[in-house]
Amino acid sequence: MSRYTAPLKEMKFVLNELAGLGAISKLPGCEDASPDTVEAILEEAGRFASGVLDPLNRSGDVEGSRWKDGAVSTPKGFKEAYQQFVEGGWAALPIDAQWGGQGLPRVVATPVEEMWCSANMSFSLCPMLTQGAIHAIELRGSDALKKIFLPKMSTGEWTGTMNLTEPQAGSDLALLRARAERRRDEKLGDHYLISGQKIFITYGEHDLTDNIVHLVLARTPDAPEGVKGISLFVVPKFLVNADGSLGARNDARCASIEHKLGIHASPTAVMVFGGEGGGATGYLVGEENRGLETMFIMMNAARFAVGLEGVAIAERAMQRAVAYARERVQGRELVAGGKAVAIVRHPDVRRMLMLMKSQTEAMRALAYAVAAATDLARHHPDEATRKLNLALVDLMIPVVKGWSTETGIEVASLGVQVHGGMGFIEETGAAQHLRDARITTIYEGTTGIQANDLVGRKIAREGGISAKAWLAMLRGFDGELAGSANADVQALRGALAAGARAVAECVDFILATAGKDPNAAFAGAVPFLRLMGIVAGGWQMARSARVAEGKLAAQAGDRKFYAAKLATARFYADHVLSQAPGLGSTVINGASSVMTLDEEQLAGE
Amino acid sequence: MSRYTAPLKEMKFVLNELAGLGAISKLPGCEDASPDTVEAILEEAGRFASGVLDPLNRSGDVEGSRWKDGAVSTPKGFKEAYQQFVEGGWAALPIDAQWGGQGLPRVVATPVEEMWCSANMSFSLCPMLTQGAIHAIELRGSDALKKIFLPKMSTGEWTGTMNLTEPQAGSDLALLRARAERRRDEKLGDHYLISGQKIFITYGEHDLTDNIVHLVLARTPDAPEGVKGISLFVVPKFLVNADGSLGARNDARCASIEHKLGIHASPTAVMVFGGEGGGATGYLVGEENRGLETMFIMMNAARFAVGLEGVAIAERAMQRAVAYARERVQGRELVAGGKAVAIVRHPDVRRMLMLMKSQTEAMRALAYAVAAATDLARHHPDEATRKLNLALVDLMIPVVKGWSTETGIEVASLGVQVHGGMGFIEETGAAQHLRDARITTIYEGTTGIQANDLVGRKIAREGGISAKAWLAMLRGFDGELAGSANADVQALRGALAAGARAVAECVDFILATAGKDPNAAFAGAVPFLRLMGIVAGGWQMARSARVAEGKLAAQAGDRKFYAAKLATARFYADHVLSQAPGLGSTVINGASSVMTLDEEQLAGE
Repeated sequence: MSRYTAPLKEMKFVLNELAGLGAISKLPGCEDASPDTVEAILEEAGRFASGVLDPLNRSGDVEGSRWKDGAVSTPKGFKEAYQQFVEGGWAALPIDAQWGGQGLPRVVATPVEEMWCSANMSFSLCPMLTQGAIHAIELRGSDALKKIFLPKMSTGEWTGTMNLTEPQAGSDLALLRARAERRRDEKLGDHYLISGQKIFITYGEHDLTDNIVHLVLARTPDAPEGVKGISLFVVPKFLVNADGSLGARNDARCASIEHKLGIHASPTAVMVFGGEGGGATGYLVGEENRGLETMFIMMNAARFAVGLEGVAIAERAMQRAVAYARERVQGRELVAGGKAVAIVRHPDVRRMLMLMKSQTEAMRALAYAVAAATDLARHHPDEATRKLNLALVDLMIPVVKGWSTETGIEVASLGVQVHGGMGFIEETGAAQHLRDARITTIYEGTTGIQANDLVGRKIAREGGISAKAWLAMLRGFDGELAGSANADVQALRGALAAGARAVAECVDFILATAGKDPNAAFAGAVPFLRLMGIVAGGWQMARSARVAEGKLAAQAGDRKFYAAKLATARFYADHVLSQAPGLGSTVINGASSVMTLDEEQLAGE
Repeated sequence: MSRYTAPLKEMKFVLNELAGLGAISKLPGCEDASPDTVEAILEEAGRFASGVLDPLNRSGDVEGSRWKDGAVSTPKGFKEAYQQFVEGGWAALPIDAQWGGQGLPRVVATPVEEMWCSANMSFSLCPMLTQGAIHAIELRGSDALKKIFLPKMSTGEWTGTMNLTEPQAGSDLALLRARAERRRDEKLGDHYLISGQKIFITYGEHDLTDNIVHLVLARTPDAPEGVKGISLFVVPKFLVNADGSLGARNDARCASIEHKLGIHASPTAVMVFGGEGGGATGYLVGEENRGLETMFIMMNAARFAVGLEGVAIAERAMQRAVAYARERVQGRELVAGGKAVAIVRHPDVRRMLMLMKSQTEAMRALAYAVAAATDLARHHPDEATRKLNLALVDLMIPVVKGWSTETGIEVASLGVQVHGGMGFIEETGAAQHLRDARITTIYEGTTGIQANDLVGRKIAREGGISAKAWLAMLRGFDGELAGSANADVQALRGALAAGARAVAECVDFILATAGKDPNAAFAGAVPFLRLMGIVAGGWQMARSARVAEGKLAAQAGDRKFYAAKLATARFYADHVLSQAPGLGSTVINGASSVMTLDEEQLAGE
């Protein structure tokens, strides 16, 4: 069995050479993130991921979380692991120092969170969701709410959840029905009675902590229809007394948990609020009817986190596949013949492993670059720099979410394929990665929704300004690549330029059609998102190839590592970037036939 | 819940307009397959698939087959369904009349077998494997073996299995260790004692029939090493007495069954031969040391059957997704706005459904065309025609197997995506199709092995003759398409021509490199296989568009159906054929970076 090992060498390369950790650690508020400190953190996190979380991954999948009479038991070992997680201070890592966190920048939290997810995706969802809930309270909560909830949530002593979906309201939150009625009494002060059913609530109920803090979207009785009438509430499982101790059990119950394709250890709850009385006690976050705004501000972080799951699962699936391919003896060498060799020697197996490796590296580099831009957008003293980076973050978030998750599934499926028949046997572990990964293109907004966000909000609505700024950056970078005499870099340069041209043509097409023929602009939204991802990944691969070329020329550092960087980038150019022109053609020419059939024709009736 | 409905209209269109059923039914030995008879058969088969097999699909997945003390129980209802299957004469459909079968041509058996697999893939594997075993005995068995086993196997009263794989010998049969020792005694006559362990034996043990006839690969003590020392044996679960009644239990036992990602109802057995004594009694099929030859002759049929599974699962996944997309109300229309509508009205959902539909139709048309060519190769009175068709079959088998299964997985995954969050919940049924489909690119030779067969045996070894003959056929067809004034047909023509050019360039590349740099030729084998599949599917889509154009011009038949054919073919051109040039570029330029890294670099060590 393959054991997870944090890819520290790779992570440090990306952080230091591509994501600019050195510069970020000099920003005000980021001084604790010096490269040396970060290295120590990553090593410690890697030990925790390999030693504590990874060993629970398969057993957690087999056992699953279990529901009984409203209570949920997580699989054996999860409670102890979570306890160690809290005691190690890991939950607090990215949380603002004023709430008791360590306040490390996003670019440092990102590789650490990648490790949790690589080692045990089901486990990692609990702190991930908690961060989202913390963020919502931080953004819009009253001082009283912050004081009651944030300290315990920051340490991880309490966890948080996001309650958005209802059976009739998934992607379409306008259809929400959960209700919130204003109340005031001496004991509880201003509060609301929340009632309604929520589904797909990750860690909506569990046995890891004493309290669970639900963030719940609901409507007040006089709210306007649609998305403009949605408010956000904090609804704790146990009410909190003035002294911080736990009070009465709230009327928020877990009615059942789902039987899912993957992430079996992560309980996906059906939550019923107000099932046993007039309602659950909830506290308004921000203003009435402005709940969705708060959700939207949080959404970037959540979508980024899910995109990172794509990277993490890809890394884990790759490690398992490489280990198997080096062990499994089958077939003779194509050229040398002779005895049977490990399958890693066969060209097609190698091609699959390189597809896994090159795409994982491209996705990781893009994700960390976006994390770095998030830090720059927040902490940089220069406003123009902040704005520029924020624009890049906004443009790239749907790409990181959509492309990295779609590609994460592809990589996990390649991992199964490398294992041959053993890949289909659950004991091997490869199939679990595919099952786990399959949710990532769905939750926090499907790939279609990411793509619509990219085409609609991020490009059409602003006249393509951010996209064109990025394309201008790519053109500038092309000039830099022109200076290289390396054949791999030149191949990469050609493929990247072709990809950038395809993106530019699609942006023009989107700007020309989004207003007058939106169906045409949006029919190609997902192929466009894939194109953007492939080209943005190619941009990062070309950057890393340039760095590697320089290091090799200067005879600096790990020669084999930098040579691998060049070859992997070259592979990406020939096997991944090569798809870009075809995707561009689909975006521009493919709209006419998408909506032609009526429903009966579609169904073959 | 979606219920399976056989796509009769579509099947009849492909059979009659593309696969040439009319002409095949006039061939000697195929007279029973008149279009009217075939229509009646398809309707009856559709009723059986929908009424008997489909209702057991989900329950069979949940329950799974179970092992206890060497016996395997199939899920509730499977035994009764199998009984009905046998009584209905379905097992006998494609089997030669001299063994009691109905002897219908492959092109007729194909849509029927597609239905079994769409409705219940796990169930369908049992008769599929039995056909393979029948075929082996038919091909090389002695008259005595044929007389004992074929009549009962033809009706389905006994089932058959294929025992190839051993723990150390999967794709590489040279590594086989199972042993066979010659014996002769009065009671059993000439026979062998078979010993060894076999794994991944589909329906190796079950409770559907009284006897199971195992076909087993093993080595005699004096056999040469490697693949030239493998012999094929019949090893029945129960020996058969001279009067045809069942005799002693053979020493062939099921040690366990696997926990798999999918096809839970289909028992995948670990078989132990000779575990309790000197060995299991087996009978040689054909000559000693020539077992692999027999397997190779059978392999085309088996690989075709698995390719058809890709079509079948894609069809089922599509039906489920279309039904859900028409029901599920979520989000407003992009242009019209207003109330929430069924998601089938959203461009990206429609794009996914069209990707599912167009690829399913393309795969089906190619599979049926290859089935028809199989019949022509077997039954046509003219030798040149037989040869031409055999060459097409040989060329296209790895394409049907590799491309249809890879695409089947893609379509099943799109089916999950269309369902959004519900797709991840097992009760919905969409996830099962993805889990079931995931084996199809692995068994009967992985996609990599199909691609190596295509590049090595089917192209390089014969100097590209068959591939070039097919390309010449495409050029001739291009001339025919030139005569159309329809804009969709012209778009298709352009995309198909670009695809054919890419194939032609790759064939030249393969011929130029396979001898002097085989790693380079084989590094792009899978992208080349995908390219071949996409272009061969495009060929069939263009053929169907031409037929539809003619029918519409002649105002003949179902106008909406033919209009849908044109639009679907156009979609295929813009969204699928558009990938062809990129794949061609990967095949030709992508080899250099595939094998560059050493194993430590690959592992990031």
